Amino acid sequence: MLELFLIGIGTGNPDHITRQAEKAIRGADLILLPHKEDNKAELARVRLSLLRDLSIDDRRISHFDMPVRRQQGTDYDRQVDEWHDAIAQRWQASLQTHLPAHSGRVALLVWGDPALYDSTLRIASRLGLAHDQVQVVPGITSMQVLCSAHGIALNEIGAPFQVTTGRQLREHGWPSGVDTLVVMLDGQCSYEQVTEADIDIYWGAYLGMPQQLLMHGRLGDIAPDITRRRARAREQNGWIMDIYLLRRTSR
Amino acid sequence: MLELFLIGIGTGNPDHITRQAEKAIRGADLILLPHKEDNKAELARVRLSLLRDLSIDDRRISHFDMPVRRQQGTDYDRQVDEWHDAIAQRWQASLQTHLPAHSGRVALLVWGDPALYDSTLRIASRLGLAHDQVQVVPGITSMQVLCSAHGIALNEIGAPFQVTTGRQLREHGWPSGVDTLVVMLDGQCSYEQVTEADIDIYWGAYLGMPQQLLMHGRLGDIAPDITRRRARAREQNGWIMDIYLLRRTSR
Repeated sequence: MLELFLIGIGTGNPDHITRQAEKAIRGADLILLPHKEDNKAELARVRLSLLRDLSIDDRRISHFDMPVRRQQGTDYDRQVDEWHDAIAQRWQASLQTHLPAHSGRVALLVWGDPALYDSTLRIASRLGLAHDQVQVVPGITSMQVLCSAHGIALNEIGAPFQVTTGRQLREHGWPSGVDTLVVMLDGQCSYEQVTEADIDIYWGAYLGMPQQLLMHGRLGDIAPDITRRRARAREQNGWIMDIYLLRRTSR
Repeated sequence: MLELFLIGIGTGNPDHITRQAEKAIRGADLILLPHKEDNKAELARVRLSLLRDLSIDDRRISHFDMPVRRQQGTDYDRQVDEWHDAIAQRWQASLQTHLPAHSGRVALLVWGDPALYDSTLRIASRLGLAHDQVQVVPGITSMQVLCSAHGIALNEIGAPFQVTTGRQLREHGWPSGVDTLVVMLDGQCSYEQVTEADIDIYWGAYLGMPQQLLMHGRLGDIAPDITRRRARAREQNGWIMDIYLLRRTSR
């Protein structure tokens, strides 16, 4: 039987890894690794060094080329669908080469947690496996590392919070009913468009990695500083991954 | 210098622990453990067995009696405040006994992650420590274990989700702007009061533990089954901790 393990490995700090993830990686017959993703060679290095650290033999690693998503046109959902199909085909090709008997344990390493703004579960669903052939191993998310680095909680006592994307924030503004927003996948500094008063921002980039950056303060005061800092860091590193929490305060 | 480590240890499965948590526990001069919490002797056992597993010497463990929260009256916020004050005083007393020079590393073990519906950060803020004297180590939350056990993602593609409590759901109904709700701290089966059609529920109890329970289906169809199952499990185990995800579907 073929078993697929989708393994959350945290945000780039090898100490984020759980025992469960470590066991799943060690127990894998085959580990599928994308050759590169979005020019983030550094992330690929972090992943490889994690595998070396666990003494994983190179022969158990199969690299595949990440297909490129078609970006022309406004049919975004369709583009994503086609892209996920293409990735699933690359996985299938690797499986046929390395596990021709279609039996064994296959691992995929996922940044953060496979449950949070990640496509691996959706791609895996294209392989036609039964429910119990797909195992998900949770991992530490950037949302949690953001909070731990700032020493704050996600929620206020008994209060709800919303997790959303930069695009949602730009298109729909501050959602009703919550005073705390966690914003992910924001390449466009959407916090600049929040016009409400009395908002605190807790921002973090490269969370868990040596070049981790943190800033926090009144949104109205520090938004331009964050935008400048972000642009500079992106230029220096060649890439950036960031996340922030916005909280309405009663001060 | 005194350093306080608030360490997320996951939901009761010792394999949830991260390397970072393991290092923080091993490096602690003193570990503060509540004698018992809410009659959950089983959870205390899980925690102790985790410490034994890490070869932590009993002499480094200081047990303290958990104060009881005053429950008369309707001043809930005040009751919680007083209770947190009382817990902080117990911690202080343990510190004075075991680390009279007020120097060393002190660890507190937190179920899940200290950032998610947990009071440890707020209690720690009463000790008058500087920001860099308090270190938070993220841990796997029940929300993540729920998703991994069901093999689902928290979010739909690019969509937001809200994390809330049973009380919020009862008092305010389904929040606007989100199709996914994660409900925590619900002792009252508040999902029964959701009247919308086309809602799927993914429910889990004792997540990560040997007696883990999972149910999912159309809310309207299986709500009574979950309520019965929950009541039976609570009676059999003497306690229950559960969580669920509700998702509006377009079927």
